[in-house]
Amino acid sequence: MSGNSIGKLFTVTTSGESHGPALLAIVDGCPPGLELSEADLQLDLDRRKPGTSRHTTQRREADEVKILSGVFEGKTTGCPIGLLIENTDQRSKDYSKIAESFRPGHADYTYQHKYGFRDYRGGGRSSARETAMRVAAGAIAKKYLFQQHGILVRGYLSQLGPVKIDAFDWNEIPNNPFFCPDAGKVEEMEKYMDALRKEGESIGAKIEVIASNVPPGLGEPIFDRLDAELAYALMSINAVKGVEIGDGFDCIDTKGTQFRDEITPEGFLSNHAGGILGGISSGQDIVARIALKPTSSLRLPGRSINTKGEPIEVVTEGRHDPCVGIRATPIAEAMVAIVLMDHLLRHRAQNLHVNSGLPILR
Amino acid sequence: MSGNSIGKLFTVTTSGESHGPALLAIVDGCPPGLELSEADLQLDLDRRKPGTSRHTTQRREADEVKILSGVFEGKTTGCPIGLLIENTDQRSKDYSKIAESFRPGHADYTYQHKYGFRDYRGGGRSSARETAMRVAAGAIAKKYLFQQHGILVRGYLSQLGPVKIDAFDWNEIPNNPFFCPDAGKVEEMEKYMDALRKEGESIGAKIEVIASNVPPGLGEPIFDRLDAELAYALMSINAVKGVEIGDGFDCIDTKGTQFRDEITPEGFLSNHAGGILGGISSGQDIVARIALKPTSSLRLPGRSINTKGEPIEVVTEGRHDPCVGIRATPIAEAMVAIVLMDHLLRHRAQNLHVNSGLPILR
Amino acid sequence: MSGNSIGKLFTVTTSGESHGPALLAIVDGCPPGLELSEADLQLDLDRRKPGTSRHTTQRREADEVKILSGVFEGKTTGCPIGLLIENTDQRSKDYSKIAESFRPGHADYTYQHKYGFRDYRGGGRSSARETAMRVAAGAIAKKYLFQQHGILVRGYLSQLGPVKIDAFDWNEIPNNPFFCPDAGKVEEMEKYMDALRKEGESIGAKIEVIASNVPPGLGEPIFDRLDAELAYALMSINAVKGVEIGDGFDCIDTKGTQFRDEITPEGFLSNHAGGILGGISSGQDIVARIALKPTSSLRLPGRSINTKGEPIEVVTEGRHDPCVGIRATPIAEAMVAIVLMDHLLRHRAQNLHVNSGLPILR
Amino acid sequence: MSGNSIGKLFTVTTSGESHGPALLAIVDGCPPGLELSEADLQLDLDRRKPGTSRHTTQRREADEVKILSGVFEGKTTGCPIGLLIENTDQRSKDYSKIAESFRPGHADYTYQHKYGFRDYRGGGRSSARETAMRVAAGAIAKKYLFQQHGILVRGYLSQLGPVKIDAFDWNEIPNNPFFCPDAGKVEEMEKYMDALRKEGESIGAKIEVIASNVPPGLGEPIFDRLDAELAYALMSINAVKGVEIGDGFDCIDTKGTQFRDEITPEGFLSNHAGGILGGISSGQDIVARIALKPTSSLRLPGRSINTKGEPIEVVTEGRHDPCVGIRATPIAEAMVAIVLMDHLLRHRAQNLHVNSGLPILR
Repeated sequence: MSGNSIGKLFTVTTSGESHGPALLAIVDGCPPGLELSEADLQLDLDRRKPGTSRHTTQRREADEVKILSGVFEGKTTGCPIGLLIENTDQRSKDYSKIAESFRPGHADYTYQHKYGFRDYRGGGRSSARETAMRVAAGAIAKKYLFQQHGILVRGYLSQLGPVKIDAFDWNEIPNNPFFCPDAGKVEEMEKYMDALRKEGESIGAKIEVIASNVPPGLGEPIFDRLDAELAYALMSINAVKGVEIGDGFDCIDTKGTQFRDEITPEGFLSNHAGGILGGISSGQDIVARIALKPTSSLRLPGRSINTKGEPIEVVTEGRHDPCVGIRATPIAEAMVAIVLMDHLLRHRAQNLHVNSGLPILR
Repeated sequence: MSGNSIGKLFTVTTSGESHGPALLAIVDGCPPGLELSEADLQLDLDRRKPGTSRHTTQRREADEVKILSGVFEGKTTGCPIGLLIENTDQRSKDYSKIAESFRPGHADYTYQHKYGFRDYRGGGRSSARETAMRVAAGAIAKKYLFQQHGILVRGYLSQLGPVKIDAFDWNEIPNNPFFCPDAGKVEEMEKYMDALRKEGESIGAKIEVIASNVPPGLGEPIFDRLDAELAYALMSINAVKGVEIGDGFDCIDTKGTQFRDEITPEGFLSNHAGGILGGISSGQDIVARIALKPTSSLRLPGRSINTKGEPIEVVTEGRHDPCVGIRATPIAEAMVAIVLMDHLLRHRAQNLHVNSGLPILR
Repeated sequence: MSGNSIGKLFTVTTSGESHGPALLAIVDGCPPGLELSEADLQLDLDRRKPGTSRHTTQRREADEVKILSGVFEGKTTGCPIGLLIENTDQRSKDYSKIAESFRPGHADYTYQHKYGFRDYRGGGRSSARETAMRVAAGAIAKKYLFQQHGILVRGYLSQLGPVKIDAFDWNEIPNNPFFCPDAGKVEEMEKYMDALRKEGESIGAKIEVIASNVPPGLGEPIFDRLDAELAYALMSINAVKGVEIGDGFDCIDTKGTQFRDEITPEGFLSNHAGGILGGISSGQDIVARIALKPTSSLRLPGRSINTKGEPIEVVTEGRHDPCVGIRATPIAEAMVAIVLMDHLLRHRAQNLHVNSGLPILR
Repeated sequence: MSGNSIGKLFTVTTSGESHGPALLAIVDGCPPGLELSEADLQLDLDRRKPGTSRHTTQRREADEVKILSGVFEGKTTGCPIGLLIENTDQRSKDYSKIAESFRPGHADYTYQHKYGFRDYRGGGRSSARETAMRVAAGAIAKKYLFQQHGILVRGYLSQLGPVKIDAFDWNEIPNNPFFCPDAGKVEEMEKYMDALRKEGESIGAKIEVIASNVPPGLGEPIFDRLDAELAYALMSINAVKGVEIGDGFDCIDTKGTQFRDEITPEGFLSNHAGGILGGISSGQDIVARIALKPTSSLRLPGRSINTKGEPIEVVTEGRHDPCVGIRATPIAEAMVAIVLMDHLLRHRAQNLHVNSGLPILR
């Protein structure tokens, strides 16, 4: 596994920088026979697309994906699927000032140390734009998971800065730009975001992803446990600083009898584990949560140094997300789908002929 | 990467169950020339060993590791290092009742679904005993990191159930069975544990690991980011349900100007990022945190089903950890060391001839 | 490693079918700072290009490669390099007859078994066109190997059907369409090929690749031995049925004293081993050889079955190579370069600080 | 894949040197439910064992394998299988002279360059003793392949130095120490070996492995083609200098109409391809062939240098194989079995639900 590749049997390899000509992805391992078209991928890409509300970055990208291989007569062939998205709206002039400086809180400084020089335009490969390809690849996984196994992968915003959701309705999510399932909190979130934008500040967010109808048995102890691979995939998203499965950090002060999910013939009585026991899926909903940090691209000045080591002040104009969390939901869903797809294939390889004889409990 | 293997250049592969004859590990990729002896590994294994205080499980294992290859005349040869630890104290009779039942909160149920049958003794491979090998392998990494690069990897308990630390002193850690750096909280923790044991309950914990003197530049965007690999390695530890880097979930309600770590020629002004920017180490201390769930092996009855699907009550006698967190610190350190070792080698492969010309700031 | 990816640190992932819109490649792991342009890659692609002599297939492809990422201001950034080659000259109508039949000697039959259906146009992914990307990726490796380490990777045709070379001159190779280093055999080869074309037949070939100035020490016992990885990479080329290192199959009847390469302070006295001892490079020229089978795309009828299992006769019109060997030399060079590049980086990761103190002998 | 690990889903990781305490292997990915005992592995180990005839090395190893994990109540659990073989008969004193010298034709020189120093005893890790573990691991694969799929993997000696076989009978193979299927050649081979031993010389050999009843569809284009992976696995065996699939190097001078294997409803009419088309198994017998070089451990003096670079003469006393080929057959079988096992699992992961509708033709 190289740094630009994820997955063992369902493998996604990407390339492309924020201001290069195009983003590429090669998705390998999708079984043959799945009906697939560009429209399937475009759906999720559009959910992620910038410029769709005043709350997201004002960069207008078509984010139009093309399928260049691996599909024939409308179905996957089993051969690798090549994807391409052209970068059409890169304003390089916005970034000329930062060639010589390191924006605090950004990867500029670390990239310079690692590579000796860097493509400074828009953060180069560290930019969030590369996530477009993850969403496209994740859409393939999502479709297969759902069509073949009825597995649903859905995410939502559970907290924006100080604003936490109180109620929950999946149907509310498409109605607001936040992926918020609580209609009653949308106005508060909008007001908060407007104030933030006036201030020139940014804030963090918490996203939750739930995978339903997951068959039990996915995950490979000891290292490729399903929770470990989900943590890996989710932490690899730009701006993520924390990952939880099930009750997460709430476990610390929970007693054993409270935490364990008891089982009856009708099903589990709770789901503190978040659908994963001993690193293997139990059949219950898989519940994963991520914490996203506030973006560091601010017009409020910050102290930093330039490439000669001299102290400078950095101000970032241009187009930015005041809250990365606004767009992270489809990306988090995509990562969960990609991991589940990989494990589904791995499980199938090893355990096909086993009939455990156990009923699947939810 | 198979399920029982971690790392790309520094690879650790393990095998062995709780009640099998022995645990094995093959550690591949350690450069030649490192002085290494069984004593080096035994040091950390002893820190992890059960039966060293009344607060940990009463199973008495020697946990004596043997080096079977890869070391010649006291130094590593560059060839794979074979390790063996015999299981000497397995009391199989303690587990006979669970052959037919699924202990709630344990991996029994999921293992049965996955494999069709399972080694039920002591949790088989899902047992925490396999972590002994991680600690042994991690000790090799720790020694190399320190000797060759001055990198220190150290962990401690920051919270036990409701008890949080207030003060901090590295030197306090070896003085108590909790790996607690706050002398003032040890008594409170002991009292709490005694009460727990009387109750028959268990509780969770929070562990923090800090890696110092890490060179900047480690980590491979986009997927093998250093934080993603740390999340993966830490989440793969039994009982871990959450991982944070830097401020973690506190980011959610932190404003951008508060969160970003400004830089001056003398160094960084803060470390909210936890030493990793854009998935690459910055040179600052790497700060990682894990949440461990309360163990589900309790003598208090819990509802479950047996292998025929009939409702039963499960009670677990025998030897158990009322708080897994008590022993997790050396394991968490080992996982962090293993990941850093792997990335150090990977970085060296790619970037040797690059002289970024930048000073290393802490 | 997925089926469409090769290499551990220098990784090449490709996608694309013969008649799809485009071929893609993502080349990951090239260290930063290498000057790279499309012209560098085009050079080798042109050597491979069909339609450049009457002896090769008459399909006219521009084979123009575009670099879509990983290069900034003329130098590699260390981030993955995305490559694209559009397929411009696909005549789908030539292949309509074979949708329902299996051409004997081709992968049609096996692909159908594996995938359930297949992109039958021009052999889909089994076509030799995908090798264009290998050549492009190999060009990157070749440049790095030569610029950074003075390593030269060069190949030539040593036998075309019954015609073996007698003399050898590297400078002769670009002067004929066969990559033949023996000027005296070119006419004989041309006559032989013309006769073959009249007959409607095809023939095999033998190609040899030599890598010079390879540093000693490359290769990872036990499994990732350099010779094993070269065998893997070379055997993965379409139509290859045999691989040799050094004396290859001539070893069988050679005595030990004849075979072993004795060493003096001035250097080795022979090179029967082909530059690899115990799976590790010795510093001597690496000598690898491949046997290519005759193409099965013939206008002479062959017996086969159709997708219903009924007996049919298959005739292949259209554009074909009467001898695949004519174009294989750049592909074989590319594969050798890709493997050496990968091992160079791996060696650097592990053994940097080792100063063996030994002189390099050739 | 590290250097000491092979396989993607069925993974074999080994460690251990010729004169270290023990050889270890961890075999991961064997599906659960396979009946497995030490006796199953011992069978093939005994076939490989030295000291069983006057024609093989006189080192007496018990080569007794122990299963340390992964098997419960006589069946595999799906968890990794740990194997251990103790080295019981190492005569270190035989090797003291070579600490300072490089035996020509051996890996001493290259190991010194790679690692800076080496375990010189008996060739350390470069010794053929590590193949014992491959045979043990291969035995697991062989059993699964046969029990679950009726796949047979069998090898034999087809040429010893100048002596080629004329007739063929599988039943003859166990009757002689050469794995020779031609009873009429055994005496000639014995005479030839005796002469060789008197001379102090060594010779090469050619081994052929045939896998029958292989399902069609195994192999992952483009890189993990079945033939490429077989070439890799076979070339990784000590002393192998050439690999062929099907007609191999005979292809070079074979015309297309002669080479292609025509198909009728009753089956294929020939098998020049060796059971693999386009990198995927066709259902026909897979035929692979290896060329083994003559061993370089001779008592006849050879010129070399010592670690200071001074010219010396090297003579190797002690116990050696005059023909490595004598013992290579079980090793070659093991490698083929390991690769087929890996690909069987991989195929199952991807293509399970595909019903190609085609009959399997042999």
